[in-house]
Amino acid sequence: MRNRERGQPADLPSLPDVLDAAARIRSHAIRTPVLRSSTLDAMFGTRLFFKCENFQRAGAFKFRGACNAVFSLSEDDARCGVATHSSGNHGAALALAARLRGIPCRVVMPRNAPDVKKAAVLGYGAEIDFCVPTLAAREEMLEGVVARTNAAVVHPYDDARVIAGQGTVALELLDDVPDLDYVLTPIGGGGLTAGTALAVKSRCPGTSMVAVEPEGADDAYRSFRSGERLPSVAPQTIADGLLTSVGVRNFALIRRYVDDIVTVGDPAIIRAMRLVWERMKTVVEPSAAVPLAALVENRIDVRGMRVGMVLSGGNVDLDRLPW
Amino acid sequence: MRNRERGQPADLPSLPDVLDAAARIRSHAIRTPVLRSSTLDAMFGTRLFFKCENFQRAGAFKFRGACNAVFSLSEDDARCGVATHSSGNHGAALALAARLRGIPCRVVMPRNAPDVKKAAVLGYGAEIDFCVPTLAAREEMLEGVVARTNAAVVHPYDDARVIAGQGTVALELLDDVPDLDYVLTPIGGGGLTAGTALAVKSRCPGTSMVAVEPEGADDAYRSFRSGERLPSVAPQTIADGLLTSVGVRNFALIRRYVDDIVTVGDPAIIRAMRLVWERMKTVVEPSAAVPLAALVENRIDVRGMRVGMVLSGGNVDLDRLPW
Repeated sequence: MRNRERGQPADLPSLPDVLDAAARIRSHAIRTPVLRSSTLDAMFGTRLFFKCENFQRAGAFKFRGACNAVFSLSEDDARCGVATHSSGNHGAALALAARLRGIPCRVVMPRNAPDVKKAAVLGYGAEIDFCVPTLAAREEMLEGVVARTNAAVVHPYDDARVIAGQGTVALELLDDVPDLDYVLTPIGGGGLTAGTALAVKSRCPGTSMVAVEPEGADDAYRSFRSGERLPSVAPQTIADGLLTSVGVRNFALIRRYVDDIVTVGDPAIIRAMRLVWERMKTVVEPSAAVPLAALVENRIDVRGMRVGMVLSGGNVDLDRLPW
Repeated sequence: MRNRERGQPADLPSLPDVLDAAARIRSHAIRTPVLRSSTLDAMFGTRLFFKCENFQRAGAFKFRGACNAVFSLSEDDARCGVATHSSGNHGAALALAARLRGIPCRVVMPRNAPDVKKAAVLGYGAEIDFCVPTLAAREEMLEGVVARTNAAVVHPYDDARVIAGQGTVALELLDDVPDLDYVLTPIGGGGLTAGTALAVKSRCPGTSMVAVEPEGADDAYRSFRSGERLPSVAPQTIADGLLTSVGVRNFALIRRYVDDIVTVGDPAIIRAMRLVWERMKTVVEPSAAVPLAALVENRIDVRGMRVGMVLSGGNVDLDRLPW
């Protein structure tokens, strides 16, 4: 925490940590398929490879990092359970990982989190503590939970074990699809982006790594351009999984391994989301459609290229679709 | 046609025809994945294997049969193109197959077909002739089209080449998942059911083959029980792909190879459809959810069993969801 306040990254994961994570989560996580769409390929003049983390357990890539963190704990550390704060997917993922290890889990969630995400956390047997939707309120309430329960905190993204776990997405993608020219991820807190970038650049240095961020929550974009972390104030976007600001460890890895960050507007995100539903027959949440939105808005020129994209999650309220 | 009127099956496909079809369509069709859901397994106390034909080209298994038929035509027969009548998925599938072979395609469609299905047919470059939504009107208009164009007719289901093509779904499912206790398909005209049953019983005689039909379009159920074809009159169901009555060849194969047919109500179909969307993150049309609806309504006891289910298609209008 002191390190974080000074803006200095603490322990950063490296490729062996990602490989360890892959072995640790193998029997729990789904090795998700890579889907293609000839219609979308034709539409964008490119070859797209969609890594379907919406099919991951608990409906998002977040399960990988949470699972790696939970199963990294010593018996002693695990005894009092785990706790976190999360707008949703990490909470559900940690709840499921804790259940698989047979330990308790408490999740601090903002009151305005989607109902479907609250239900998922409860469904996996965790307890929820509701707070107002600010980072300060989340952290304060989480400190209280930890003081009472002595639970081990698993941060949703600024955690070496979590970043290493998310990096396993890229290991699988690179194994299944050789010779990618680009890998694109959505970016919120930066767990997926940092882990993916670390794995991609360690394995395939010639592959370009680009993160895509909603304009209304563009702290990673501004931070990347300025060279220092500039957290968001009151971010607003349909991509509810990307409201958080980039973490310290995440930013350190992003500066080292990410080639570029571009931003997209909510209308393009909604259009990209609908394209994925209609053309790929797969349910993704708005955050997962953010990389494709960069092609919809022509923010990145990938014509003729082989492009890997992570469809990060599929937890969306079917009664409140954005079209 | 004379054969059909006398109720006698004409040429019936056999396993070698299905194997030929698999070789013929291999370079055109997608080898669709089999997805699982631990949540649905727990919910129904079973092990479910979903063969995702909603990821097939043109969004449904229909592409397999259409593709096999189009690429079975001699150069001479192919020259004037192909024609069919279809409530939607077969039309789009035939249009795509014809485009791949570079021949013209005309599709007779009922005016009340979903917009998304009309758009797909047009998008693949075929021409549509609209008719009133009765089988008689469809067939009459198709005869007119054939008289004018000399196109080769590819019936949506009552065609040995089409049935053999649909049977390739089962070949792949059985290759990927050994030791299935049950295979479940939705049934409309019976192309998928007949092809699947033929392949399943030829390859794995110990596997039970059950077709599931909407109560509001239960001609296959009644025909199976009575032993003679009893076409539907004015069928009504949310499962718009299953309004057609079982064909002659289809019924002959169904009597030979299908173990049972059960029916389900529209509320169970809608609930099953939503379960697939929410839990499996995959977009299916109502017809595709019909087999799972049989578990929702407890119409078939598969507890503890290994059950293969064909998710037949994913072409649904995202602006008109049934919940």
